[in-house]
Amino acid sequence: MQQTPPPYHPPIAPPIEWIGPAESGHLRLLDQTQLPITTTYLDCTTTQHIWDAIKRLVVRGAPAIGITAAYGLVIASQTPPPNSPLAALSPEDRFQKSCDYLATSRPTAVNLFWAIDRLRKLPDHSPAALLAEAKKIHEEDRKMCHAIGQHALDYLLQHITPHTNRPLTFHTHCNAGALATGGIGTATAPMYLAHEQNIPIRIFADETRPLLQGSRLTAFELQSAGIDVTLICDDMAAHVMQQKLIDLVIVGADRIAANGDAANKIGTYNLAVLAKHHNIPFFVAAPSSTFDLSLSDGSHIPIEERASNEITQGFGNQTAPNNIKTYSPAFDVTPHALITALITERGIIPKPNTQSVTAHLS
Amino acid sequence: MQQTPPPYHPPIAPPIEWIGPAESGHLRLLDQTQLPITTTYLDCTTTQHIWDAIKRLVVRGAPAIGITAAYGLVIASQTPPPNSPLAALSPEDRFQKSCDYLATSRPTAVNLFWAIDRLRKLPDHSPAALLAEAKKIHEEDRKMCHAIGQHALDYLLQHITPHTNRPLTFHTHCNAGALATGGIGTATAPMYLAHEQNIPIRIFADETRPLLQGSRLTAFELQSAGIDVTLICDDMAAHVMQQKLIDLVIVGADRIAANGDAANKIGTYNLAVLAKHHNIPFFVAAPSSTFDLSLSDGSHIPIEERASNEITQGFGNQTAPNNIKTYSPAFDVTPHALITALITERGIIPKPNTQSVTAHLS
Repeated sequence: MQQTPPPYHPPIAPPIEWIGPAESGHLRLLDQTQLPITTTYLDCTTTQHIWDAIKRLVVRGAPAIGITAAYGLVIASQTPPPNSPLAALSPEDRFQKSCDYLATSRPTAVNLFWAIDRLRKLPDHSPAALLAEAKKIHEEDRKMCHAIGQHALDYLLQHITPHTNRPLTFHTHCNAGALATGGIGTATAPMYLAHEQNIPIRIFADETRPLLQGSRLTAFELQSAGIDVTLICDDMAAHVMQQKLIDLVIVGADRIAANGDAANKIGTYNLAVLAKHHNIPFFVAAPSSTFDLSLSDGSHIPIEERASNEITQGFGNQTAPNNIKTYSPAFDVTPHALITALITERGIIPKPNTQSVTAHLS
Repeated sequence: MQQTPPPYHPPIAPPIEWIGPAESGHLRLLDQTQLPITTTYLDCTTTQHIWDAIKRLVVRGAPAIGITAAYGLVIASQTPPPNSPLAALSPEDRFQKSCDYLATSRPTAVNLFWAIDRLRKLPDHSPAALLAEAKKIHEEDRKMCHAIGQHALDYLLQHITPHTNRPLTFHTHCNAGALATGGIGTATAPMYLAHEQNIPIRIFADETRPLLQGSRLTAFELQSAGIDVTLICDDMAAHVMQQKLIDLVIVGADRIAANGDAANKIGTYNLAVLAKHHNIPFFVAAPSSTFDLSLSDGSHIPIEERASNEITQGFGNQTAPNNIKTYSPAFDVTPHALITALITERGIIPKPNTQSVTAHLS
């Protein structure tokens, strides 16, 4: 992240955008609950709007949530209307109470607490000072995505030759995209940069059951950016690889252990095994803040189990018998041995292991 | 199939049942379009009802369609009401026209044509003679399922030890079950027999996108039979195997080449690769009529591509962007090298190849 990346080219209308001056402006959010059917924006003018937007998943993805909360605190610091109950509080009391309040919107979102703490620690809690810091957080994330993308693209162009004479073809899972970050995403970052540089690419995005982030979000954002994207079901991945349609797999990560084992959306490990069988390189792209060196390996990463109805009645109709037993792990762990390289904003970790991960991060 | 199998124990209310005498009876079908939410039956009293039931997928699965068409021809041979336009035709004309008509209900269903031809070739087209033959076709299929189940169960009990001290745990895909056949299915047959014999078993059934036959049909029929079944999404299979929850995978087949390469519902090959990686045995259970010895290997099996909206709006609501490009192969081909054994009504073909398949079928 030494050099300044070129100007931001949003692949889609920005999912998070501050509108107007610090003292009277507001936050405009792309309403991701309405995707992929309609593109609508939500203008958040109160802290409660922000809280509600995070709670209802109008905005999701760890970096995007942190950025949204930071802008939310700018709103919290603005002078309230004279008839508002908030007008009775001192500006600092309003700010502190808003910090506590916003922290309750997604109780397990680490980036949320991190962003709130960062603004809390500022000496000056005026709207102008908070907006400057919120924009800094946003900009840092944008640069981080860009750096991941540039490292990834350089590496891919150097090491991977497309099968026969065709565009370089990526397979991706879930959404580690622009919609989840302040920039061009992590796994999607090399796709956006390649597209910007007119390097021919093609993407296969899988649905990502149960919550369909692949079809609802990744297919949407890549299509909106004009990138050639094809949607498949999760169980079609092996066939597509067998047909030699895929040159590489790239995914994000939620947490990476010291030895390089990576936890990500359920179904990621599936793809890693399939890629290995078909001799297709498998990459994990994530900011260095995703590493948790307190965990020696992936077996220590807890796997959350999700509600049955996400499988049985996820999208309109009920698709399974009443009272059927389900098992719905939210994440899986891909052992480092199946990962061709980890890609962070600092560079590449080929064949990751405890030594190379530690060296990369130190 | 030398010995007579024990009496039929339907795991669920029979999906295909002839009610009443040949001359005045009718066919009762479990309406599979209403599964898994409600169990309703359709009483078919005319050839048009039968045609419509096959067309609308009230009944599906190659063997089940053949059986249904055979019973449909019994109805076609019954004396029509005096005021019906059919009353003007001779009984033989009515029968022949009905044969042609029913053959148009599912134009690519080989078992449909096979069953119609078999009844056409009978010297006697009276209701009694046709009903006897239809019941024979039904009974043959029932015995065939039973024989597959017995061979499979014997083999599994002999060769597979459950991981730790737990029920023998199967993973299956799509529906090669009782709902698709005249008996206890093919892939499901050893499950029903084990359950009948109080052998502890547990089943993981995956959803099988895009058409969800796993959640809509397999989960339903196993649950109805009182078998311990857990529904997962397709992309959870690798994680479940990694957690050592699965002892074996068993699936059906649509077509098997001379060398043992097997075409089955998309997602089957996925599981075969994952099973291989986790050292889990992978079985394909299918009647010997599924083999097509004119195809030397699986590369000659044509793969039908299905409509985009099965992916984009398969659950009720639209789950992908408008005009998104999709790729939706209906089947995939599992190379014989990934198949631990093929199981037919004649027995087991371990490590199938051209020699062992040819020997088994001759």
